[in-house]
Amino acid sequence: MDARPIGVFDSGLGGLTCVKKLMEVLPGEDIIYLGDTGRVPYGGRSRETIIKYARQDIAFLRGFDIKAVVVACGTVSTNGLEEIAGDYPIPVMGVADAAAEAAVSATKNGRIGLIGTKASIRSHAYDEKILARMPNAAIFKAACPLFVPLVEEGRIDPEDPVLNLVAEGYLQELKKENVDTLIMGCTHYPLIARTLSRIMGPEVRLIDPGAVTAERLRRELEAGDALREGGRGSRSYYVTDSAEDFSRTASLFLNSHIEGSVRQITLEGASQ
Amino acid sequence: MDARPIGVFDSGLGGLTCVKKLMEVLPGEDIIYLGDTGRVPYGGRSRETIIKYARQDIAFLRGFDIKAVVVACGTVSTNGLEEIAGDYPIPVMGVADAAAEAAVSATKNGRIGLIGTKASIRSHAYDEKILARMPNAAIFKAACPLFVPLVEEGRIDPEDPVLNLVAEGYLQELKKENVDTLIMGCTHYPLIARTLSRIMGPEVRLIDPGAVTAERLRRELEAGDALREGGRGSRSYYVTDSAEDFSRTASLFLNSHIEGSVRQITLEGASQ
Repeated sequence: MDARPIGVFDSGLGGLTCVKKLMEVLPGEDIIYLGDTGRVPYGGRSRETIIKYARQDIAFLRGFDIKAVVVACGTVSTNGLEEIAGDYPIPVMGVADAAAEAAVSATKNGRIGLIGTKASIRSHAYDEKILARMPNAAIFKAACPLFVPLVEEGRIDPEDPVLNLVAEGYLQELKKENVDTLIMGCTHYPLIARTLSRIMGPEVRLIDPGAVTAERLRRELEAGDALREGGRGSRSYYVTDSAEDFSRTASLFLNSHIEGSVRQITLEGASQ
Repeated sequence: MDARPIGVFDSGLGGLTCVKKLMEVLPGEDIIYLGDTGRVPYGGRSRETIIKYARQDIAFLRGFDIKAVVVACGTVSTNGLEEIAGDYPIPVMGVADAAAEAAVSATKNGRIGLIGTKASIRSHAYDEKILARMPNAAIFKAACPLFVPLVEEGRIDPEDPVLNLVAEGYLQELKKENVDTLIMGCTHYPLIARTLSRIMGPEVRLIDPGAVTAERLRRELEAGDALREGGRGSRSYYVTDSAEDFSRTASLFLNSHIEGSVRQITLEGASQ
C-alpha cells in the first residue's frame, strides 16, 4: 500500500468531473486537485503555452509528495503531454490515453467520433492514440466551443432549447458518419451526456474520459500494490484565482457539496 | 500637435472593435494595440487579479512613449480602473466612462439598460458612473456570458437561430422594463448590434462604448492641441499568446484585413 495522495489538475474546474469519478472508483485515496482558474481556458492557447502551464501545474502538485498525476485537462492531454510525461519519476496519466483505449474496446464498426475544444480537435493526438491501437479505425471529429460556456451557465437540462440547437448542429456530421462510439473529449461534457446521448441515439456508446481514467488508475495502483483501500480519503482543492465562487461552480461539476479545504495559490515560475 | 501614439488594450481581440472606431474618428493617429490573449478572458476573474493585469498591460504600452491609454476592456474599465488611472501622468480613458456619459445624453425616459460579462454586471461601476450624472436614472442590467463565445464562433448573422434564441432570453427583462437606451458593455457586442437592435426595437438607442470613447478622445486631444491630423497613422498589434491565428480573428473584429505589424510578447512582471 502506498498512502501518498493522487494529484489531479485541469485548466479550471471542469476536471472536478474527473475527481467525482476518482472518488467513486478509488474512495480510500487522498486527492489533491489543482484548478488553474487564473488562466482558464487552455483550449485556444498555443501548444508551447499549454506545455509551459502543464509543467507548472505538475510542479505544484509534486510539492505534496504524490504517487501519481491525473491530467484531467483534455487540452493538455492532447497537446504535448507525451513530451513531458517521461520527465517525472511518477506516473503522469492523461485522460486522452484512457479514453482512446476505451473507445477502441467499445467500437464494433471501427467508426469513432470525438468532440472537444478547438485545440483538442486541431491536435492529432487522439487520432494517433486510437490508430496506434486500431490502425483501420475511422475517426470523425467535431469542435464544440460553445459547450463549455453553456455548461458553465448551467444550461445542462436535456430540455434546454439552446443546448439542444447547438448540440444538434455540432453532432450532425458525426451522426451521418454512423459512428458507434463517441469520446467526450472535454471535462465539461459528461454534464450534458444525456443530451448528447439522445441526439446520437441509444446505440452510440459515450466514453467519459474521467471515468475510464479512474478505472485505469485503479488497475495500475492494484498492479503495483499501491492502492489505498478502506476508509475515506481526504480532498484538498487549490485554485489560482479567487476561491470565492469555487463552491457554487464546483458543486455543479461534483454534483454534490464540496468537502475538504479550498485555497487560492500562486504557481511558482508562472510567467504569465 | 502631439505625434506620440495612442495605446489601446483589451484582454483579448474584442478591443479591436474599439480600434476600428479610433481609426475612423482619429485616422491620423498611430495606434499601438495590446491584446492579452494569453490570459483572456478577464471577465470572471477576481477584482484583484483584474487590477494586476491592467497595470501590467498599461506598463507595456507606456514603454512606447504614448500620449494616452484607451482601456477597451469593459471588464477592466468597470473593475478598479478608477483606482489606478490617477497613477499615470497621461490620460487613461476607460470605455465605461464615455459610455455612461453617452447613455445619459441619449435617454429620454431615464431608463437605461446595460449588458456585459458577469464581472461587469456584478460590479456597480456603471451604476455609479450613470447615477453621478443622472441621480434619478433607473438602471436595468443583464449578464450575457454566451455572447462572447457566440461572436468568437462567428455566429453574428442576424438570422442565426442560436444567437437569436440566446439574445431573446437575455434581453427579455430589459424589454419589459421599457429601457430606451442600451449600453453594449462588452467589446464583442457591436458585432451583434443588428440582432440586439431588432429584439429591443428601433426606438431603443444602442450605445457602442468604443465609438463614444473614440469621439471623447478626439475632443480631449483637440482641446489639448494634441490631435495628429492629416495622413494615415500606423498600427502595431501585440498579443501575449501565439500571433498565428491573429489575422483571421482580428479581421472579424476590424471588419477588414489587418494592416501593420503583429508580434507576440511576454508582459514584464506578469506573475501568472
